[in-house]
Amino acid sequence: MINVTAKSAILLMYCPDQKGIVISITDFIFRNGGNILYLEQHVDTERRIFFMRIEWDLQDFVIADGKIGEYFDTLVAKRFAMNWRLQFSDEVPRMALFVSRQPHCFYDMLARYEAGEWQVEIPLIISNHADMQTAAGRLGIDYVHLPVTAENRTEVERRQLELLQQYRIDFVVLARYMQVLSNDFISRYPDRIINIHHSFLPAFPGARPYHSAHDRGVKIIGATSHYATTALDAGPIIEQDVVRVSHEDSVEDMVRKGRDLEKMVLARAVWHHLHHNILVYENRTVVFE
Amino acid sequence: MINVTAKSAILLMYCPDQKGIVISITDFIFRNGGNILYLEQHVDTERRIFFMRIEWDLQDFVIADGKIGEYFDTLVAKRFAMNWRLQFSDEVPRMALFVSRQPHCFYDMLARYEAGEWQVEIPLIISNHADMQTAAGRLGIDYVHLPVTAENRTEVERRQLELLQQYRIDFVVLARYMQVLSNDFISRYPDRIINIHHSFLPAFPGARPYHSAHDRGVKIIGATSHYATTALDAGPIIEQDVVRVSHEDSVEDMVRKGRDLEKMVLARAVWHHLHHNILVYENRTVVFE
Amino acid sequence: MINVTAKSAILLMYCPDQKGIVISITDFIFRNGGNILYLEQHVDTERRIFFMRIEWDLQDFVIADGKIGEYFDTLVAKRFAMNWRLQFSDEVPRMALFVSRQPHCFYDMLARYEAGEWQVEIPLIISNHADMQTAAGRLGIDYVHLPVTAENRTEVERRQLELLQQYRIDFVVLARYMQVLSNDFISRYPDRIINIHHSFLPAFPGARPYHSAHDRGVKIIGATSHYATTALDAGPIIEQDVVRVSHEDSVEDMVRKGRDLEKMVLARAVWHHLHHNILVYENRTVVFE
Amino acid sequence: MINVTAKSAILLMYCPDQKGIVISITDFIFRNGGNILYLEQHVDTERRIFFMRIEWDLQDFVIADGKIGEYFDTLVAKRFAMNWRLQFSDEVPRMALFVSRQPHCFYDMLARYEAGEWQVEIPLIISNHADMQTAAGRLGIDYVHLPVTAENRTEVERRQLELLQQYRIDFVVLARYMQVLSNDFISRYPDRIINIHHSFLPAFPGARPYHSAHDRGVKIIGATSHYATTALDAGPIIEQDVVRVSHEDSVEDMVRKGRDLEKMVLARAVWHHLHHNILVYENRTVVFE
Repeated sequence: MINVTAKSAILLMYCPDQKGIVISITDFIFRNGGNILYLEQHVDTERRIFFMRIEWDLQDFVIADGKIGEYFDTLVAKRFAMNWRLQFSDEVPRMALFVSRQPHCFYDMLARYEAGEWQVEIPLIISNHADMQTAAGRLGIDYVHLPVTAENRTEVERRQLELLQQYRIDFVVLARYMQVLSNDFISRYPDRIINIHHSFLPAFPGARPYHSAHDRGVKIIGATSHYATTALDAGPIIEQDVVRVSHEDSVEDMVRKGRDLEKMVLARAVWHHLHHNILVYENRTVVFE
Repeated sequence: MINVTAKSAILLMYCPDQKGIVISITDFIFRNGGNILYLEQHVDTERRIFFMRIEWDLQDFVIADGKIGEYFDTLVAKRFAMNWRLQFSDEVPRMALFVSRQPHCFYDMLARYEAGEWQVEIPLIISNHADMQTAAGRLGIDYVHLPVTAENRTEVERRQLELLQQYRIDFVVLARYMQVLSNDFISRYPDRIINIHHSFLPAFPGARPYHSAHDRGVKIIGATSHYATTALDAGPIIEQDVVRVSHEDSVEDMVRKGRDLEKMVLARAVWHHLHHNILVYENRTVVFE
Repeated sequence: MINVTAKSAILLMYCPDQKGIVISITDFIFRNGGNILYLEQHVDTERRIFFMRIEWDLQDFVIADGKIGEYFDTLVAKRFAMNWRLQFSDEVPRMALFVSRQPHCFYDMLARYEAGEWQVEIPLIISNHADMQTAAGRLGIDYVHLPVTAENRTEVERRQLELLQQYRIDFVVLARYMQVLSNDFISRYPDRIINIHHSFLPAFPGARPYHSAHDRGVKIIGATSHYATTALDAGPIIEQDVVRVSHEDSVEDMVRKGRDLEKMVLARAVWHHLHHNILVYENRTVVFE
Repeated sequence: MINVTAKSAILLMYCPDQKGIVISITDFIFRNGGNILYLEQHVDTERRIFFMRIEWDLQDFVIADGKIGEYFDTLVAKRFAMNWRLQFSDEVPRMALFVSRQPHCFYDMLARYEAGEWQVEIPLIISNHADMQTAAGRLGIDYVHLPVTAENRTEVERRQLELLQQYRIDFVVLARYMQVLSNDFISRYPDRIINIHHSFLPAFPGARPYHSAHDRGVKIIGATSHYATTALDAGPIIEQDVVRVSHEDSVEDMVRKGRDLEKMVLARAVWHHLHHNILVYENRTVVFE
C-alpha cells in the first residue's frame, strides 16, 4: 500500500472486458501529467467483467480536480461503458455511528477516532439507548437518543434520515445496532451502510448466532462485515474473520471471543471503505488491498 | 499430549453432572494400581452434563484388560448413569476408504499410511470409479470397484456392507466419495463414518459449495469433517478449518485452495478418531486434545 | 470454561510426577464437601513434571477460606513437594497500567475496563508522557506523569515502586511502555508484570521490530505477550498471534496491522492472568484454557 | 487469478521508479496486438523501486515468441534500466527433488505430481538415503542414491551437479533434504533452489527448531519456504504459515503438527514458482498473487 502525503486521485471502475482498457486509462493519466502510484486490475473471467483501481499523483496533472470526472467520462469511460467512481486522497468523509447497548465496537471505533487512526469525521451517534451518551460527550460528538418501539419505528427512521441529512453524513456504521432498518432507509444509502454481523455468514444469519453456533457444535466462529441491503444479512461481504472454539466454550465464551473478532472485522471494513478500496458488483465486493 | 510406549487404557464417558464423579473414577484407577497419564474433564454447564477422558498406565493395574469394562461398569458407571467407552492404546483399528475420482484426500491418506503416521490398518478401498486402483495396488490394499447407478444403488450398498463385514472394518472414511449413502447404511456405523465436506458447514451444505461460496462473495472458505448421520451434511462436526480468498479467486482457485484444506481437515479428524479423543453427544462432538 | 456465580477456589500446582497425585487432590476436595467444577491436568513427560489447575465450589466446603491453604499444604502439597497457588473467584486484583505515547493498547484496556469485561480494578496509570492524562481522568483513574531521562531513571523507578505500594497494586501491565525497567524493579514483581512485544518472539527482539520484519521480508508478523524478566524480551510467553503481510505492506502498514494484533494479544494475556489460568515453570507458561 | 487455456506471455520486472513506466509497458503490449489478462504493479516507496507482473494473450500478438524478449529489451526495458524476466504459460519446467529420510513433503509432492495438480516434470530425485526409492520407481522417476559423508561431500556435490545438467533441471526443491549445500552449489542455481525450513524464520534457524521452540515455550510454531542462498536459512522468504501449539504439546506433537504445515508451505512456494509469480529483490520476494 502506497503512502501519499501529496494529493492523489483514485479511480475505481468496472466494465465489460475487452482489449485496450488498461492502455486507455494509463494513457489518459500519463498524457495529462499524472504519475501512477498504484494500479490493481482484475478480470472476472467467468462473467467477463474488468475491474480496476488506479491512483495517481495530482501534482503535475493538467486537468483541474473538478474536471477530471467529466474528462475521464468523455474520453475513456463512455467508450467502454464503464461504471466508475472518482475519489481524492484528501477527502475526510463524515460518518454516523448507530449503536445500541453492546459497547465493544463502539468503544473501539471511538478509540481509533481519538487516536487519529482514521481519516474521518464522526459528528453524530444515534442510539436507541442512552448508555453511551457520556462516552460520546467526552469527544464532543452529538449523541441523539431515539428509543425504538414497534409503534414509532417509522417515525424514528424519518428522524434518523433528517439527522443524517442535517449532519451531511456520507456513510453509516451499524456498530451492533440490533434494529432492523426499513428497505426505504437502506435504499437511500446504497453501499454506504456498513453492518457487522456476529457470525460467519452465510452461516447463522438472523438473531442469536452464537447460540446457533453452539447448538450446531462448530469448531470455528466468525464475524462478517457487509454493506446493508434490503435482504437481511445478505448484503455484499467486505471482510470476514474467524476464531477457533472448542467444546469447552459455552455460549458466553463464544460471545466473549466473538466481541474481539467483531470489532476487528468491523474496523477493517471501515478502513477499506475510507481508503476507497471497495467496488460492489452483483452483490459481491472487490476489495483492492 | 502424552506419549505412551507402554500399554494404557482410555476411558471416555459422560453422564448427568453431580458431586463425586471425578473422585470415584480416579479412586477406581488408583486403588487398582493404575497411574493416571492424562485426564481431561469438562462440564456442559447449560445442560449439566459431565464429560471426561482419562488414560492410565496398565503396567501395575490389577484388573485384567478384559475385565476392566465390567468392573468399571459395576463399581462406577452404573452409579452415575454413565455412557462410557473403553479403549486400549495398542488397538489397531481397521479402516475402509471410500473414494470417487477426486484424488487429493485419497493420496494424502495413503501417504500417511505408508509413512506410518497413523496406527491403523487399511485393508479395503471401495470406489465407484477405477481411477485409483493402481495407487491402491502398490500398497497391497484391496480395491473394489463398484460403479453406482440410479438403479443399482441398493444392490451396491448391500455389497459394500458385505465387504465391510468380510474385512472386519471398524470405521469408514469418505474421502470425497460424492455418493449419498442410505439411512440404513449410515445407521449401521454410528459415529464410525467420517466424511469431509468442502465448505465451512453449516454454510453451503450440499453439492457445489465452492460455486456457492464464489457466488456469495465470501472472504474465507472452509472445510468440515464430521460423522455422517442420516441428516445430510448435518452430523456432529469433528474439525473445521478455513483459508482466506479474495475477489481475485475464481471458483477454480477456490477448488485448489480448498483441496489442501480438505485433506488437512480430514486427516486431523481421522487422527482424533484413532486417538480416541472424540465423544459424541446430542449431535455435537467433545474433542479432547 | 465454567461460569460460576457462586464463590469457588482455584488451585494451581506443579510437582515432580508420581503416582497418586490426582487422587490425593480430588480426595482432599471431595472429602471436605467441595464440588469439582473444572479440572485440567497435564504432565510434561520429558521433564516428568505434573501440572494441574482445579476449581471447586466452596458452598458446602467445610474448611474456611482462610485455612484452605494451610490444610492443603499440610495434607497434600508437602507430600508431593508441590509448588502451589490458591486463588478465589471473587478476588478483584488491582492493576497498574504503564504507558508511553502509543495509545492503542491503552485505549483498548480502558474500553474493556469501562465496559466491565474484566474483573479488575485499575486505580493507577503511570506514564513518561502526559498524552493520555485526559482519557484516564474521565474514568477517575489517577494518572502519574513521570518523565524519564538517562539521569533520573533510578529515581523514577523508586517513585514508581512507591506508587505501586501505595496503591496496593497486584500486577502491572506494560501497554507499550517503551522504557526498559531495571532488574531490581522486575524482580519485585515476578510473574506479575505483563509486557506486549510487537513481534513474534523470539524473532525480532529489541527495538523497531516492524522495521526488522520488513527488511527480512517475512510473510507473517506477530505480537507476543509475556511476563517481564530480567532478560529483555525473553520472559515466559503467555500468548502470541500473527497476521499475514505481503510485499505490498510498507513498514507503516505493518505498524497499522500490528497495532490491532498487539491489543488483542495483550488483552488475552491479561484475561488469562485475571482468570488464574497461568502457571510459570522454567521460563515457560502453562496456560489452562 | 486468471485461467488461460490459450498461450500467454508473462513479464516480471523491476527498476527505479519514475513516470511513464506503466504506460510504456501497456503501450508495447497493446500496440502489438496483445490483450492484457492480468496486471499487478507495486512500488516500494521507501526504496523507490517499481515492480510489475503483466500477463497477456499471445493469440493476436504480432511479435514472434522468440523475439519478444529482444523487442521488449530494446523498446522498453533499456530505457528504464529494468531487470526483467519473460516466461510463457505453456512452459513445463523440470524439477529435481532432493530428499533425505523425512517422507511427508516428498509424498505430498509426488501425490500432487501424480494427480496432475502442477504443470511440471519431475525426472529426477536425489537422496542420501535409499528409503524412498520404491515410491519414486512407481512413478517412473529416476532415483539416485548418493550417501553423504564428511569425506565425500565435495565429490557428491560434483555428481549432483552433473545429474542436474544431464537431466536439464530448471529448479531444485529441497524437501527436508537436511544436508547443507556448498556456496558453490547454491550459486549455480540462484533463486532456483527452494528449501523448506521447519520454523517461523528468522526464529529458530539451524538444526532442531522444534526442540528450540519447545524450550522457548512459544504458543505458535511455523514453517518457512525460501530460496536457498549462501547464508544458511537466510534466503528470500517465499511463503510462511503457522499453527497454534500449547503447553500440552510435546516436541513430538510439534513435529507432527509441523509436518502438515511444512508440506503445505512448501507446496504453495512451488506453486508460486511454477506460476512465475515471484520476483527476488534485495533478499526479499515480491509474490504476485
